[in-house]
Formats: sequence, structure tokens, C-alpha cells
Amino acid sequence: MANEDIKVMENIYNENDRIADEIQKGLSSKGIYAINVMGAPGAGKTSCLINIIKGLPEIQSYVIEGDIESDIDTVKLKEIGIETVQINTYGECHLDGPLIASTLEKVNFDKQGLLFIENIGNLVCPAEFSIGENIKLLISAVTEGDDKPYKYPLAFQKAAVILLNKTDLLPLVDFDIDYFSEGLRALNPYAPIFTVSAKTGEGFSEVCSWLKAKL
Amino acid sequence: MANEDIKVMENIYNENDRIADEIQKGLSSKGIYAINVMGAPGAGKTSCLINIIKGLPEIQSYVIEGDIESDIDTVKLKEIGIETVQINTYGECHLDGPLIASTLEKVNFDKQGLLFIENIGNLVCPAEFSIGENIKLLISAVTEGDDKPYKYPLAFQKAAVILLNKTDLLPLVDFDIDYFSEGLRALNPYAPIFTVSAKTGEGFSEVCSWLKAKL
Repeated sequence: MANEDIKVMENIYNENDRIADEIQKGLSSKGIYAINVMGAPGAGKTSCLINIIKGLPEIQSYVIEGDIESDIDTVKLKEIGIETVQINTYGECHLDGPLIASTLEKVNFDKQGLLFIENIGNLVCPAEFSIGENIKLLISAVTEGDDKPYKYPLAFQKAAVILLNKTDLLPLVDFDIDYFSEGLRALNPYAPIFTVSAKTGEGFSEVCSWLKAKL
Repeated sequence: MANEDIKVMENIYNENDRIADEIQKGLSSKGIYAINVMGAPGAGKTSCLINIIKGLPEIQSYVIEGDIESDIDTVKLKEIGIETVQINTYGECHLDGPLIASTLEKVNFDKQGLLFIENIGNLVCPAEFSIGENIKLLISAVTEGDDKPYKYPLAFQKAAVILLNKTDLLPLVDFDIDYFSEGLRALNPYAPIFTVSAKTGEGFSEVCSWLKAKL
């Protein structure tokens, strides 16, 4: 990359961080705890969110759904009564501060609670951009293989909590949970790992308890 | 994005295309047919390559392995005697022309044949950059869900061939192959779809026959 291009990238990151800080302050003042939900395409981000939100009926949850195109997940969430706003990036590989700032105007925060922002399905770029969240929640599926922390370190390093999803398929895939954990711990010594199955619901009561304790 | 940032991006794309054209000419003159292998993290790109290369023993195959970090897949390929060169991008979310141009110097093309370039595991950014390939081969796993063409259209639109992998798990996941195909066909009417399982080897003889006919 040429020096002028690096300069442009630095400006983008700095401006993003400034806007993300403002978002954080604005949400805090409303009593909203924001979670940046990251994961590869098909890791089960939306299905995990449904399990978490249903497991916390006493807390008001809001969702911002990020997708390059389509509103498939937003339709799914609204059908079961979850307040959801769709963002389409039409090509952009991650959500960023400016995009979230303009989207927040469309969310009707009438009560304090949790805001889940489901990022674009991508294990690389979303980890580079703060979007004003309190924590990053990373979802990794056992069907993706046990080497993901070694291959995509930044996302695993920055996560405050990791959900290892699709564990109902664990007996059928070659997944060494010790190897996965070792790779993760080398990058991120303390973030809790929850083994879950969005299909069967297993493991989500523990996730919900942990999340409640954060509020 | 500000106007000056858009200008920088245009310059990057144009310069990339120019270098990709040069790569294409250089490889053609050596009798090398290049395949840009794309897919989400954990779609099974390396495992599919192993099945294809083993299924074409009469053809010399070369591999360039793209990863953000680690050389896990290169070690795996070399262990079974496949000529492989590793690229690490250390953060970059896709391979591009300049990176491939400099890497090609390290590949020892002593016979004509096939060059597989395994891109970074990412369903978004790699589709935007030509790397001098003859065709793009896209791998999508049934465990990722049937909605991927709707959510990540560019990769599916640009693929010359699609491998639907992990079909050994098809009875255990909610995957509607008609819905997947409809989404794909709306973007890409003619690219063949092969249903395969890198685990059992099923479906790869058809992929190999198709590939052989392309040469």
C-alpha cells in the first residue's frame, strides 16, 4: 500500500473511533448495553441471538441486523416479536461507527436494556472496527473446524465472550476442543467460552446468566 | 466515504486489474490454468483441494495457500506431497494481484498444469479482486445454511463453478437445496453446482471430470 493510501486508512480508523465513542456515550446515557455480535457466514449468529433474547424475557432487547443484502434475518426476528432494524451495506464487509450512528435514530429505545448489533458474517474485517459496543461476542461453529483461532486471530483476541455453536454436530465432525481452546487462550486468556447449540437450546441458560451479571 | 477515499479505492482496483492481467498472460504462456478458490472460513477449501488434486493424478497441481496467519494448511498439503507455497497477509482480508505476482516467483512451475490459489476464508472481499485466475471456484458448506447466495451475492455471482460441501451432514442440518439453488440461479444462471463431501470423497469424480474438460 502506498503512503497516501495508509494515511487514508488511518483517517478512516481515527474518525471511526471518535464516532464509536460518541455512540457509546449516547447508549450508556439511555441505559443500553450494546453487544457487537461477530462470526463467520453461517456460524449461527441470528439463531444464537434468538436463544439469548428468549432466555432473558425480563430484559428489553433490541437488534440491529447487518447484512450485505437481504432482510431474511430481520423478517425471522420480527416474526417472533423482536424489535429489529435492518442495515444493508451493499458490498461493505463490516459495520462501522458512522453506519451505526445513523441507524440508531431508527431504533425506538423506550426502555433500558440490551442492544445486539449483528455484524456482517465475516471473521476478518468486523474485528477492526469499533461500533460503540460495550463488548464483542464472537460465535464460532464446530462445523468450521478447530483451527479458527489460529487462522483468524484478531476476532478471537478482541472477543469478550465466545460461543462455540452447533455442538449438537460435535460427534460427527473432527473438532478437537482442546486444540481450539489452546489457540484461543494464546490470544485471549480470560474470555469465557460457552458451548451451545442454537438448534437444541443447550448451553444458553449459562450464557444468559453470564450476560445478566454484566448488566 | 469521502470523494478522495473513493478515488484511492478506484486507483487500487485499477492497478490490481492491470497486474492481474499480466499474471494471467504469464501463467498462460507457461501452460498453467489458475483457479481462485473462495469460501467462508471453515467451508472446507483445503479438504476439497486435496480431493480434487488426488482425483487428477495425471495432472501436475500447484497450490498457493492464502491465510491471515498460520501455515496449518500448507503443512497438511506438503505432508501428502502437494507442491504448496504459503502467503500470510497478517490482517488483510483478501488476496490481490500484487501479492500473487510476488508469490509466483516462489513457485517452481516445471510442468504445465493446474494452479489452485486458496484465498482468505471470507465470503465478501475476495470476490472483489481478480488475482489473475482463469476461473473462480466457490465452496459453500451445507452447515453454513441455504441462504448464503441471498446474503453474499457477489461471490456467488462471480463463481464459474460452485461446490456444495459437507453433504454428509445434510440429513442433520436444515438445508433446502431448492432454496439455495434458486438464490444462486437468480445471480448466476449457468455455473455448475457439484454436491460433494470432502470427508467421504463423494462427488469429486464429477468435479475432476468437469475440470479436466476445461483444460
